[in-house]
Amino acid sequence: MTDLILAFDFGGTKHTAGLIERSAHTWLAQKQVTSPPGADGAYDIATMLGLGRDLLAGARPAAVGVSFGGPVDYATGTVRLSHHVPGWENQPLRRLIETEFGAPTNVDNDANVAAVGEHRFGAGRGCSSLLYITVSTGVGGGWILDNRSWRGRDSMAGEFGHIMVDPLGPDCICGSHGCVERLAAGPNIALRAREWLVAQPERGAILRGLVGGDVSAVDGKAVAQAAAQGDELAWDALAVSARALGQAIGSVANLINPERFVLGGGVTKSGDRYWETIRATARAVAMPEVHFDLVPAGLGDYAPLWGAVAIADQPPA
Amino acid sequence: MTDLILAFDFGGTKHTAGLIERSAHTWLAQKQVTSPPGADGAYDIATMLGLGRDLLAGARPAAVGVSFGGPVDYATGTVRLSHHVPGWENQPLRRLIETEFGAPTNVDNDANVAAVGEHRFGAGRGCSSLLYITVSTGVGGGWILDNRSWRGRDSMAGEFGHIMVDPLGPDCICGSHGCVERLAAGPNIALRAREWLVAQPERGAILRGLVGGDVSAVDGKAVAQAAAQGDELAWDALAVSARALGQAIGSVANLINPERFVLGGGVTKSGDRYWETIRATARAVAMPEVHFDLVPAGLGDYAPLWGAVAIADQPPA
Repeated sequence: MTDLILAFDFGGTKHTAGLIERSAHTWLAQKQVTSPPGADGAYDIATMLGLGRDLLAGARPAAVGVSFGGPVDYATGTVRLSHHVPGWENQPLRRLIETEFGAPTNVDNDANVAAVGEHRFGAGRGCSSLLYITVSTGVGGGWILDNRSWRGRDSMAGEFGHIMVDPLGPDCICGSHGCVERLAAGPNIALRAREWLVAQPERGAILRGLVGGDVSAVDGKAVAQAAAQGDELAWDALAVSARALGQAIGSVANLINPERFVLGGGVTKSGDRYWETIRATARAVAMPEVHFDLVPAGLGDYAPLWGAVAIADQPPA
Repeated sequence: MTDLILAFDFGGTKHTAGLIERSAHTWLAQKQVTSPPGADGAYDIATMLGLGRDLLAGARPAAVGVSFGGPVDYATGTVRLSHHVPGWENQPLRRLIETEFGAPTNVDNDANVAAVGEHRFGAGRGCSSLLYITVSTGVGGGWILDNRSWRGRDSMAGEFGHIMVDPLGPDCICGSHGCVERLAAGPNIALRAREWLVAQPERGAILRGLVGGDVSAVDGKAVAQAAAQGDELAWDALAVSARALGQAIGSVANLINPERFVLGGGVTKSGDRYWETIRATARAVAMPEVHFDLVPAGLGDYAPLWGAVAIADQPPA
């Protein structure tokens, strides 16, 4: 009898369950569902337990790993809340899953789990310390230090997106201002481009063309696409994001001196010029004696699910 | 027979050796010397070996710990260089001391060693993760994570002073600009105050009085003293330092979520208003869910010597 690992990835509205043999590198089965509008925590939990039962078909897993898209207390496996879905406050997710499947379970937030996934199966293999950074609708991060997750005092470590890079920068949803996320995340790139399109009517012809003249339709992807086609307003809006990331990466290199930075998320698909600007800025901020690799993530959207496999086996905190 | 620990603190020009019984909390003996002008690495090493022999009076130490005021490769105990004194390049300090005293020796840079000292004997007791920050002629730092030093890929971790806090800030000696050190260190506070005294002849009466009208004589201490007496130009120059420290501390709290920040160095003796500004800025930048203590260092100038005692017993890297 082989050891089965059950992995869950609770996203914002898209949830995935997967079944894999321990030490294997391909999935036996995966199922994905999308929550209907109005779904709450209890609904999502019931749905995922059902997916797990379907995948297992009566077998008992050796261990379960869970990635959750929001703050989690790792020591107890309790979800603190979801920023997107109601009814997740203080859900004892680990206990619910252990009761259902009779197997030891670990639960952590998606950025930490994705960091573990990249470290074990992706672009972080072979190094002992890394910061995983994801840049999409927000900017998140997760630490591997000395081959283990570093979570910190409140399980809050890894909030790379809320490093302040500009003391005169715009207000951020976190209550502070000038944060990496406020300058670098996709929706904020789009917001900046829309503001500039309104204020600078002579610029941005390519970007305007891409959205049929409807400035309100500009999103992060349109900005990246226009920049790739040579639109300088679009590039300027994107460059603010790249410089903010590069400044923070260089500062973090000086502060923690990790071996590697692994960058993922949709915004990091914005092309070579975007990556070169991140690299050049990070290198200029880092001290000459401080070395680091800066590489694209290897697992894409599946980093949390692979990471869930890896954390299933971890000792509890 | 008791276990004797020999501790060395190689400063810029002031060097201290101390002898203590393992597990004791008072020194059996200490000796301090000041290097003459023109001294080099070989001179300083010979002097310190002599101090050690004097203290030991023929006894053999159980272990030796060494704090060095510059970059060190901890794994080999080799000094990379001194930024202040010539002839320190690639000195195999651990091997030289082990040969002289026949005892296992650990060597680390002063910021890491001071962090260990505060953690074991000072303001960091009882917590498992902290960033020690020293603010004086420069701004340095050292990490304790999970009760151990964290040094990073190149033994460069802890360079808190070279976090960029202002992308429009002035050039820093590290080659970057807008660094914490460039805004917060004592000589840079004084530089700023002198520039403002020249540019704003109607301000700074108290500070001018303290230096008998000789603006070129303004140093960091004079600025702190004038600010304490109500000089608003002096306070403004000091506040830039406090805000830079607070901004970086809040960002680091989000990134690493350590239990405690321990602040030492001469500049941190600039009074309650200085501390309150650091605290308020750090708290505003840190996310609401991120908690930390921010406390003054407990060992003053003796943190590296106490830390040398603590690292004497550490396992090699």
